[in-house]
Amino acid sequence: MAEKVTISVDALGGDNAPQVVLDGVAEALAEDGDLSVILCGPAEVVEPFAASHDRCVARATTEEISMAEHPANAVRKKKDSSIVVGCRLVKEGEAQGFFSAGSTGACLAAGTLVMGRIKGIARPALATLLPSPVKPVVLCDVGANADCKPEYLVQFAEMASIYANKILGIAEPRVGLLNIGEEEEKGSQFAQEAHQLLKEKVPNFAGNAEGRDVLGGEFDVIVCDGFTGNVCLKTIEGTAKMLFKQIKGIMMSSFKTKIGALMLKDGLKGLAASVDPDEAGGAPLLGVKGACIVGHGSSGARAIKNGVLASARYVRSGMTEEIAAIAK
Amino acid sequence: MAEKVTISVDALGGDNAPQVVLDGVAEALAEDGDLSVILCGPAEVVEPFAASHDRCVARATTEEISMAEHPANAVRKKKDSSIVVGCRLVKEGEAQGFFSAGSTGACLAAGTLVMGRIKGIARPALATLLPSPVKPVVLCDVGANADCKPEYLVQFAEMASIYANKILGIAEPRVGLLNIGEEEEKGSQFAQEAHQLLKEKVPNFAGNAEGRDVLGGEFDVIVCDGFTGNVCLKTIEGTAKMLFKQIKGIMMSSFKTKIGALMLKDGLKGLAASVDPDEAGGAPLLGVKGACIVGHGSSGARAIKNGVLASARYVRSGMTEEIAAIAK
Repeated sequence: MAEKVTISVDALGGDNAPQVVLDGVAEALAEDGDLSVILCGPAEVVEPFAASHDRCVARATTEEISMAEHPANAVRKKKDSSIVVGCRLVKEGEAQGFFSAGSTGACLAAGTLVMGRIKGIARPALATLLPSPVKPVVLCDVGANADCKPEYLVQFAEMASIYANKILGIAEPRVGLLNIGEEEEKGSQFAQEAHQLLKEKVPNFAGNAEGRDVLGGEFDVIVCDGFTGNVCLKTIEGTAKMLFKQIKGIMMSSFKTKIGALMLKDGLKGLAASVDPDEAGGAPLLGVKGACIVGHGSSGARAIKNGVLASARYVRSGMTEEIAAIAK
Repeated sequence: MAEKVTISVDALGGDNAPQVVLDGVAEALAEDGDLSVILCGPAEVVEPFAASHDRCVARATTEEISMAEHPANAVRKKKDSSIVVGCRLVKEGEAQGFFSAGSTGACLAAGTLVMGRIKGIARPALATLLPSPVKPVVLCDVGANADCKPEYLVQFAEMASIYANKILGIAEPRVGLLNIGEEEEKGSQFAQEAHQLLKEKVPNFAGNAEGRDVLGGEFDVIVCDGFTGNVCLKTIEGTAKMLFKQIKGIMMSSFKTKIGALMLKDGLKGLAASVDPDEAGGAPLLGVKGACIVGHGSSGARAIKNGVLASARYVRSGMTEEIAAIAK
């Protein structure tokens, strides 16, 4: 039996909310018998669902934060929004983790402002497990801190190493710095300073990683400022999506190619799944007091299920306590 | 008949030099009857080749800049290196353009320090024509300026627009700013300031482009600092390479998949060619007095040929004069 965990879930998160959220939560509850969910959202959405599902409690909220709003302002103003309430439940100990596929900016702001930073952590950072058929890699920060000081990257490396350890089971993750050359004197002023600090302070630092090394399998963790990380993440997604679309077009172009496609279907499906961000179950905001996991806006029910289960796994792994221990 | 053009070529540039350079130059000379080449490199390499090829002159040099050297220092010290001599030939009017597949950093330094900046251009920038099956896009800067001021991006946008116009024939290229959100208040301090300047000063500015939009076809030109651009470019290359390798593995995994592969071979070959950086013929350093085009270190003979021909095309297009006109 696993440790009992309660996760608050934003019923309004994502392009296809609330239906896919409800479907995903139902699947997560069915799969993990030690999981409870507090579902945050409009009464008419969350109450009927909670009434008909075991281990699910409704928390009616009256406000919604849209994707277009300024994240920090919205979090400060909309105290009864599903995102703010979900994070407050963690702060108050009713839940141990929060999951949303809603506005990433608002989730990061609420995680930091409402749940609160772990003492000693300068900046919480968004990590993502990049799906790769070669070997998964943790990229951090992918958007919580568009502007960084070089010293933040030391904590990003430490936190992301704990994550790689807990989630991927890697004892000593190889940490790379996302940079534009292999040699330590390469890169922007920022990257050069970050390189020196990582070399000094992070024993498992293994040097610079270039854009082409991100999915190459040489590193387990790659750190960078949140601007560069977000560009890198979305470039990978965009490139893979474009290529798969083109391949599909080629396969459907004639009778002969359709037959060829049938013969390769299983393998290519497996490859598509291996680079599918929905499999990973969302990106954790490392460094806040509890699990705060953000899913893709385009999440379907399976991605929501994986995100809720990943939140429970995060709590059970003791991530928060380990980060607190290194932050002292 | 095309305008007669002389291009100086670095015989030592690239991982497979000098043989692939000689092969590529021979092919370029055969293809373009109005092209002359001044081949720079060790006497024993360049002299026999020039003696046996029309429209090719040898310029013996005694030094070599390796990939590992500090680019600007090497350019200052090694005045008789093939890269410095090649750029000096343009400066002195013996050639109108220079091509090398050698150290990118050294070529950028020699282009800027030896050929010289066009008057009024704050920072020359490296542009690349990103191959995409959807629609090619010019990304600039991809590595000449790891640290930028927001105002540099205005000139990058102007120069890259001229390039897109000349090379892709687009009358009014749609210019995007590489950023981490669509809205103008998104991104780092740098990106927010750059956005405002581009909006004010570049009439064909069309807003922010996210990583996933780079290959999407919505923009003709995407500008950014050279750090972000280099990460983006190499991430695209790495992702495409990884996926093609995986697909190849899937195709070779069984008898059935091998048959399927045969049926899709032509289409997939075309797709691979459409994302092949060798087709583009190298990246121009925009804003210097002459063509200065840098090829991939891994260039084969075909990539060298395309690079030399692209250098001649650059000269004939009048790029340098048009950039000088906007820089005033």
